[in-house]
Amino acid sequence: MKNNPLGIFDSGIGGLTILKKVMELLPHEDTVYFGDTARLPYGEKSPESIIRYSLQNAHFLSLHKIKLLVIACHTASAYSAKLLREQFSIPVIDVIEPAIACAVEASISKKIAVLGTRATINSGIYEKKIKECKPDAEIISVACPLLVPLVEENFLSHRATKLIIQEYLKPIIHKKFDTVILGCTHYPRLFPLIQEVLGVHVTIIDSAAACAQEILNELKRNTLAKPPSEIEKRQYYVSDDPEKFKRLGENFLGKIMERVSLYKEL
Amino acid sequence: MKNNPLGIFDSGIGGLTILKKVMELLPHEDTVYFGDTARLPYGEKSPESIIRYSLQNAHFLSLHKIKLLVIACHTASAYSAKLLREQFSIPVIDVIEPAIACAVEASISKKIAVLGTRATINSGIYEKKIKECKPDAEIISVACPLLVPLVEENFLSHRATKLIIQEYLKPIIHKKFDTVILGCTHYPRLFPLIQEVLGVHVTIIDSAAACAQEILNELKRNTLAKPPSEIEKRQYYVSDDPEKFKRLGENFLGKIMERVSLYKEL
Repeated sequence: MKNNPLGIFDSGIGGLTILKKVMELLPHEDTVYFGDTARLPYGEKSPESIIRYSLQNAHFLSLHKIKLLVIACHTASAYSAKLLREQFSIPVIDVIEPAIACAVEASISKKIAVLGTRATINSGIYEKKIKECKPDAEIISVACPLLVPLVEENFLSHRATKLIIQEYLKPIIHKKFDTVILGCTHYPRLFPLIQEVLGVHVTIIDSAAACAQEILNELKRNTLAKPPSEIEKRQYYVSDDPEKFKRLGENFLGKIMERVSLYKEL
Repeated sequence: MKNNPLGIFDSGIGGLTILKKVMELLPHEDTVYFGDTARLPYGEKSPESIIRYSLQNAHFLSLHKIKLLVIACHTASAYSAKLLREQFSIPVIDVIEPAIACAVEASISKKIAVLGTRATINSGIYEKKIKECKPDAEIISVACPLLVPLVEENFLSHRATKLIIQEYLKPIIHKKFDTVILGCTHYPRLFPLIQEVLGVHVTIIDSAAACAQEILNELKRNTLAKPPSEIEKRQYYVSDDPEKFKRLGENFLGKIMERVSLYKEL
C-alpha cells in the first residue's frame, strides 16, 4: 500500500499547482494526475453534474490503486468531498478545508479575505466553513475572474496584472484584513504579485501549499508514506487535448511532463 | 417579405456588437437574435460540430420567417457560410468578408494586420481570404486571448487593458501597417483604446460596422428594406442562462433587453 501512488484530479490544469507543491514536499511519492479538460470549467455546471463527474474521476484514479485521493478543484471540493469520503475507503483530501484551517489559525484580527473565481465566491463555501470554525470572523469574498486567463496567458509579473490585482483588492487593502486565502488553484502562480500589492504584514494562505501539507500529515497519520526510492513515477491523464495540457501545464509545474495520455471513456 | 425580421446568430453575446450597429444603421428593421450560449465557445470545437450547430441555429431562426441571415460569429463564418448559402434561399451575410473588403480597399501600404482570438488566428481564414483579394498583401495575424475576458469584465478603458493591448500590438506598431481588422466580435468595444495605441494614422476596420453596412447594401440590392414604422420588434433567444446573457448583453448593446427567452431544443 505504501508504494501505491497518490491520485489527484482537477477539472483542468489548475490542480497542477497542488501537484507542484506535492512534488516539493513529498518528492518520493508516485502520482497519477487526471485533468477533466473535456468538461471544464466545472464552475458553470450544476451540482448534480459536478458530483457525477467527481465520482467518475475518482473511479478512474482508483483503477491505478491509489492510496490517497486529492480533490484538486475548488468546485468539486465544495460539492463532492463528503460523498467521495463516504464512497471510498482511502483518505480523501480536498483543497478547501486545509486552507481554512491555516487561515483561522493565522488570523489575529479575525478579518479574513477570500479570493476566488466567480463560481467559487458565489457558492459561499468559504464563508460557511470559516464561520463553522470561527463564528465571530469577519469575512470578505472577492471574485477575481480575470486572474485565471492572465495566469493561463503567462502574464505573471506584467504591470497590467498588478493593476488588475490592485483593482480587485481595493476592498481589502488598509482595512485590517490580516489573512487572505487564495481560493483558486491558479492563483498561487500570482503569489509574489499579490503579496506585493497587499504588503508583507498580510498572511497569504496558498491553498495548494496547505493542501500538500495536509496530504503529508494524512500519510504520516496512516503510516502510508512511501520509503525513498530512486525513481518516482509521474502519470498524467486528460479527457481532451493532451498537447494543450502539456504546453500550459509545464508552465504550471516548472517541469517537463514526459507523457500526457488521453482518457476518453468518461 | 419586407416586413420580415433579420435573423442573427452567434455562439454567445459577441454578436450583439453587430446587432448594435444594425440598430444604429437600420433602426426600423425588426430583428431576431440567437446566442448559442449552451455550446459556446465555438472556437474550440471541430469543424463538423461548428457546421452542425450553424445549420441548427439557422433553422431555428428560419422558423421566425427571417428575410436575411447574419452569421455574427467568426468561427461559424469561417466554416459554415458556404453551406448556409447553399441551403438557404435568403441572403446570408457573414462577419469576415465585409471586413476584408473594407481592409483591402483602405490599405495603401498593403500591410494589413488582423487581431482575433487564438482559434480565429489559428484557422488562417483572414490570411487566406485577403490573399485571394490582394495576392501581394503582407498580412500579420495577432492572437489577443485576454481581450475577450477584459471586455466581458467591462475593463474597457482601464490602464491595465491599455497595457495589454500595447503588449499584443508590439509586432505592428511603427511597422507601416496602415490597416488593422478587429477580427473578433468583442473587440469593437475596445475600439477607442486600440485606436489610441495604434495612432490616428492607422485605419481600424470594425468587422461589426462592416457587416452592418453589408446588410444595408444587401437589403437595398434586393429591395428588402422595411418601410419605417413606429415600433421595431427585438427578439432575443439563447440556449442557456438568459439572465447572464441579459446582464452582460445590455453592456454590449447599451440598451435594455425587454425579454430574453430560453430555447433548449438544440
